Amino acid sequence: MSTPSISVTGIRMAGEFVEGDKVADRIFAACEQAGFRLADDDVVVVTHKIVSKAEGRVAEMAPGDWEARDALIAREGATFLRRKGSIAITRTRHGFVCASAGIDASNVAPGTVTLLPLNSDRSARSIRSRLKRLAGADVAVVISDTFGRAWRNGQTNVAIGVAGMLPTVNYRDTTDSFGTVLKVTNIAIADELAGAAEMVMGKAEGIPVAVIRGAPVKRGRGSAAELIRPAHEDFFL
Amino acid sequence: MSTPSISVTGIRMAGEFVEGDKVADRIFAACEQAGFRLADDDVVVVTHKIVSKAEGRVAEMAPGDWEARDALIAREGATFLRRKGSIAITRTRHGFVCASAGIDASNVAPGTVTLLPLNSDRSARSIRSRLKRLAGADVAVVISDTFGRAWRNGQTNVAIGVAGMLPTVNYRDTTDSFGTVLKVTNIAIADELAGAAEMVMGKAEGIPVAVIRGAPVKRGRGSAAELIRPAHEDFFL
Repeated sequence: MSTPSISVTGIRMAGEFVEGDKVADRIFAACEQAGFRLADDDVVVVTHKIVSKAEGRVAEMAPGDWEARDALIAREGATFLRRKGSIAITRTRHGFVCASAGIDASNVAPGTVTLLPLNSDRSARSIRSRLKRLAGADVAVVISDTFGRAWRNGQTNVAIGVAGMLPTVNYRDTTDSFGTVLKVTNIAIADELAGAAEMVMGKAEGIPVAVIRGAPVKRGRGSAAELIRPAHEDFFL
Repeated sequence: MSTPSISVTGIRMAGEFVEGDKVADRIFAACEQAGFRLADDDVVVVTHKIVSKAEGRVAEMAPGDWEARDALIAREGATFLRRKGSIAITRTRHGFVCASAGIDASNVAPGTVTLLPLNSDRSARSIRSRLKRLAGADVAVVISDTFGRAWRNGQTNVAIGVAGMLPTVNYRDTTDSFGTVLKVTNIAIADELAGAAEMVMGKAEGIPVAVIRGAPVKRGRGSAAELIRPAHEDFFL
């Protein structure tokens, strides 16, 4: 049997993103420039930051102005779950639980912040559809953001938009090496892909995109919305 | 500038693990057999399942006997955070929040379950120290398990043991492309490594180990214990 292997390749992109930029076109151009040829079943992970900028999802906010930040959170349609000092844990209009409704002051012009895409699954579908045409390859797309977690220190990248693949891999119907049917394992592979991509993206090096090849994704119509646990099933809201 | 790339390679291992097995020796032998040569700075991710078996951390439990399961959770020194039907969300003796204190009936002989290693950071250090000697390569080691999360459907693999690297990468002191000092980004890279490894491990294919090459880990004395948010700082316990 062969040795299974996955590769995660960062795609450098020079220059800023501004409203109206065509994200898929620029990703394709950057791949071409890097000599990286997209292939069927590749997963293209895109940091939401460039998507938000291209979609004009940018607002003004002075650094450390928590009152303005809280007003922006409310304007974004998010609700507050917990607040303490400058920390605000929120549930966004999409249903994501994260700090400050995903409002982010890093890697934007000082005095401005980026907001999450209004509909990050739709953004993923749009990028996928255009990339597919440009590259002639049936890729999947994940849009990522950096979220904190309950109970564990540190943040990881997770999926906030998914297109062309299922966000989870279901081992429920498979049998383990003892013949026991696995009951509860349903891996959130879109989040693992986003986390793997983070490792080549870093935070400040102009690598907003990573291409993951060889991952055991199941192709199909999927969304990041499916990763949101319904409020009535959640023990920790 | 070069294109940054990470590889994640699964290492197949034939045969069961039983108490007393030398995990590092078997990993090294499996790498040799696969023609995979470990190198400095590789991260060797090991599913806790084989570590638990080798350490004799196995107990008897009839499938679906939730009373026995709950007794085992208590015996394991874990506390119950939430209970509903057959679901028990617990905090383990190590401080990890997960279902059923990590007790797991998959990939063990029917009627038995595996328990978490008593001290998974110590297990990681021990595997690393032996692997380093056998392979002559200064590798890091992550021991992984599959945990659910608050707010999001599906599970991901996370680190429950770490040796030879820091569990987080701190971007706090770095400057983003606009010269803004990043304040809050502290990536739990050990968890992202565990998640990336899961994608080549699958659940039932005899691949309990993955080697990740090229990840931006910071070497040093680190532990998975550092990934546990202290109870008094946690909003969701």
